[in-house]
Order: sequence, then structure tokens, then C-alpha cells
Amino acid sequence: MKASRKIAYLGPPGTFSQEAALRQFGEDGELLECRAIDEVFAAVETGQALHGVAPIENSTEGAVNNTQDCLIDSPLLITGEQVVLIEHHLLAAEGANSGQIHAIASHPQSLAQCRRWLLAHYPDAELRECASNGQAAQLAARESGLAAIAGAMAGRIHNLKPLAGSIQDQAGNRTRFAVLGREAAPATGHDKTSILVYAENRPGALFRVLEPFERLGISLSRLESRPSRDEKWEYIFFMDFAGHRQDSVVKELFRRLGTRTDAVKILGSYPVSA
Amino acid sequence: MKASRKIAYLGPPGTFSQEAALRQFGEDGELLECRAIDEVFAAVETGQALHGVAPIENSTEGAVNNTQDCLIDSPLLITGEQVVLIEHHLLAAEGANSGQIHAIASHPQSLAQCRRWLLAHYPDAELRECASNGQAAQLAARESGLAAIAGAMAGRIHNLKPLAGSIQDQAGNRTRFAVLGREAAPATGHDKTSILVYAENRPGALFRVLEPFERLGISLSRLESRPSRDEKWEYIFFMDFAGHRQDSVVKELFRRLGTRTDAVKILGSYPVSA
Repeated sequence: MKASRKIAYLGPPGTFSQEAALRQFGEDGELLECRAIDEVFAAVETGQALHGVAPIENSTEGAVNNTQDCLIDSPLLITGEQVVLIEHHLLAAEGANSGQIHAIASHPQSLAQCRRWLLAHYPDAELRECASNGQAAQLAARESGLAAIAGAMAGRIHNLKPLAGSIQDQAGNRTRFAVLGREAAPATGHDKTSILVYAENRPGALFRVLEPFERLGISLSRLESRPSRDEKWEYIFFMDFAGHRQDSVVKELFRRLGTRTDAVKILGSYPVSA
Repeated sequence: MKASRKIAYLGPPGTFSQEAALRQFGEDGELLECRAIDEVFAAVETGQALHGVAPIENSTEGAVNNTQDCLIDSPLLITGEQVVLIEHHLLAAEGANSGQIHAIASHPQSLAQCRRWLLAHYPDAELRECASNGQAAQLAARESGLAAIAGAMAGRIHNLKPLAGSIQDQAGNRTRFAVLGREAAPATGHDKTSILVYAENRPGALFRVLEPFERLGISLSRLESRPSRDEKWEYIFFMDFAGHRQDSVVKELFRRLGTRTDAVKILGSYPVSA
């Protein structure tokens, strides 16, 4: 049996997760749409897909704590990352022109994020709330006089043209996506490593965890604490730092962390996103 | 002119933000619906509302990084917190019975979170994706044979009865909401303090920030790092710890942090949520 080469991503089509998947694997990757983050993990764990893509930092498409929960429990590794600029565009069917637009559809959060722009440019347009920006793009492809607020990917899928670009009121946020796989990524010389650290919930616990990073001169790029769901007295730290798990300095770091924490789970070493 | 007593919250009606607002201020509070997190902040800053309520940790209702961005820029203080258990129920109009339900409406994320339960109990039901769980509850109140997946608050607003409770596939997540105000909350003896710390982005910076906490025996309950949007070389840490800014040990902490960081912004001291 030929192993699946599919890439599982958090749908519906047109999401920024899909954009991250295409950036990582190119147009040749055969995509598998999932409707929840734990489905993305399950697809890769069971071999239905070779890789998965899920948001790992702030995202409006899926609660990131779902990804964190899955990482705690799953045997999968992080094998790459993609950072996507979250930009909203006003999109309409080919042939439409700006003056004809009387209704604008999008997810409520996206409408809110473009509120000031909409007031300035389409003060009289009817705003139609949709379940997702992909659904809004679908509507815009069918209904003349209706435009959608959505990302570039949704526009491409539904053959829409941009009437206006980058219309969100604040500069676009960047969302980080994790690429998931069953096998570790090789060292490239420009890697980072993600780990989970379990430590007692008492003053100074985190300080003792950080001491080896300080002594070894290892640079942390992310640190997030989360109360453990199971043990009230325990904390979980999500940490990213520069280096690959095969680097000797990182091996020394793990040796030192071993005596200062309850447990360390290596989530993966992978190339830093450009 | 009488100052407004309104409570601004992240709508639409039926959100968990509304539930957090009612828990904090009781049924007497007059609520002001906002459609975006920065609207909640603006309403309190301009005096249109006396207090605001916005999600500060993982939430599907609004991107929490919006709240963090607002906290960085706003003069408002955190004056309280509410922790809400995110539970989904199957809700239908009075008089409906489980056997008649042929369609189930909700936000796509909520449908995904209840997927296994839906497959087991309503394998043939049509799933209808809505812009919000509040919109789904509204549909359920109008359309017989249609049930909504939503929180208890949405059910109360639209006079729906629960056909099944707590149907999400995984144990409910807790989401933390911040209560915002223009005036500092007094010490109660059981308080926590939230701060922002700006520090250089180099190995050991966080270690030096944490050292005074360790020496003074102050317990951190949350720590999250975020790259600064303005300065590539700078990091922002969101930190919560036990104690009130008027406690002498906390004053000593701030004195020591002053020499070790680029800046510290006190977001507020407030009673710990039960």
C-alpha cells in the first residue's frame, strides 16, 4: 500500500491554515480538509495524511488551546512552521465594480476588524454575518452586488477579484502555524526547538527552569505558561528556543533540565520560518 | 450629568463574555453590547460605560491578542477577573422534543467541538453553520425542528430549553475574562496583580526579570511572552502574580524590576476569581 502523501489542514477551504499548508508544501500537495484541530492531528496519527498544519499562536480560525492540548497528548512532532500575515481584502465576482456593491458578507470578527474602513467606504452597505470567510467568498461568487471580506486564498478558490486590499483597521497580525509529522526533521543549521516542561507550581520553579538557558546562552523565542488540567499543583510551560535537539549545547540543556523539572517533552526541532 | 453605569461586553448577546459580565455585576448591571474588543475598551475610556469585560485568555469569541494589544496601549486598569467554564448545550424552543429535531445550528467551531456527540445522537441531522452561537439560538427560537448548540446564556436570552447538557466532546475549557475600569480596585487581602514588562530580546533577559520574584518568594500564576510589534529587539512579557500593588513586598518587587527592565506597566491589582 502506498502511504498517503496528503496534507491535513484546518478548513473550510480558504482559511489561513490552507494558505500555510500551500506555502509549506507548494501547489502540488494534495490537501485534506479537517473541521477541527484534533481532526488534523488524528489524520496524521492514523496515516490518513503525511503531514498536518494547525495554528499554534493567536488565530481567529480555531482556539489555539486546542492545538496545545493536542500537542500535550499526541506522539506527533512539529517538523516546520509557517508565519502568515492575516490580511483581509474586499472581494467580488469578476465583472463587479465597486459602485454596485450593496451588501458585504464575512465572519463577524472580520467585519469588526474592518469596521472603520467599512464606515468610510461603504457606510450604507448591508453587512451579512457568515459562519466563515470561506462561506462569505462562496456567496460573493454567486450573488452580484455582494462582496466578501476574506483572505487572498479564499478569493483564489472562488475566482474573486479584489476591489480593495488590506482593509483591516489595524496592521495585519501574524499567525504562526505548526507543521506536524510522524518523523523528526533533520538539522539545517538554522533551527528552533519546541518543548513542553512540567514543573511544580511554586515560587521560583520557572526561575530554576530558565537558569540552564541563561548559563548556556540559549535564546528563548517564546514562553507561555499554562495550568495543567490534571494536576492543580503543576504548571506546563510551552517554550521555543534557538537550536536543534542534535546540537551538543541543546543536549546539555536537556541534561540540566532533567534534574530541575518533573518532565520535559520534546515537541520537535525544525527550520526557522523565513 | 450622571456618569454612565453601563457594562460594555463583547457581543453578540449570548456570548460567554456576557455571562462573565453578569457574574461580575449581577442581573442589575445595564449591559452595552460591543462588536469588537477595541470597542469594549473605547466605551470605557470615553465614559460611555463604567466597566468593560473582555476575554484575556484562550477564547473562540475574539482573538485574545486584540485584548493584549489594547492593554498595551490603553490607560484602563484591570479591576477584576471572571473564569467561565465554556460548556455547550443542545437547546430548542419550549415544546420541542428530541425526536423532532432534524437540523442543528451553531458556529462551525462549536459544531466541530461536539462532533462525536452529534454523530452518536443525531447522525442524520442537517448541520447548519451560523455566524455565532447567539445567531443559532435565535434560529432555534423561530424554527421548529431546529435545535442550536450554544451556551446557557444564549438559551436564557432566547427562552430555549436544554435537550442535552454539556455535549462538547472534551471537558469544557475555562476562559478567563478581564474586568476593565478607569479606577484601581482596593486591596482585599486575596489579590493578584497583572503587569507588562518590556525587556531586551537577548539570552538571559527573562531570567533577570524573574530573579526578583524568586528572591522575594512571589508566586507567578501566568507568564506569556510576545514579540513587540514596534521594536524587533524587544520582548513584552504579560505576567500575573500573587499580591496587591500596595503590598510592601510588591512595592519592593517593582523597585527591583526597575533596574532590570526597559519598562514596567502595571495593568492592575484585583481580587482573585473564586
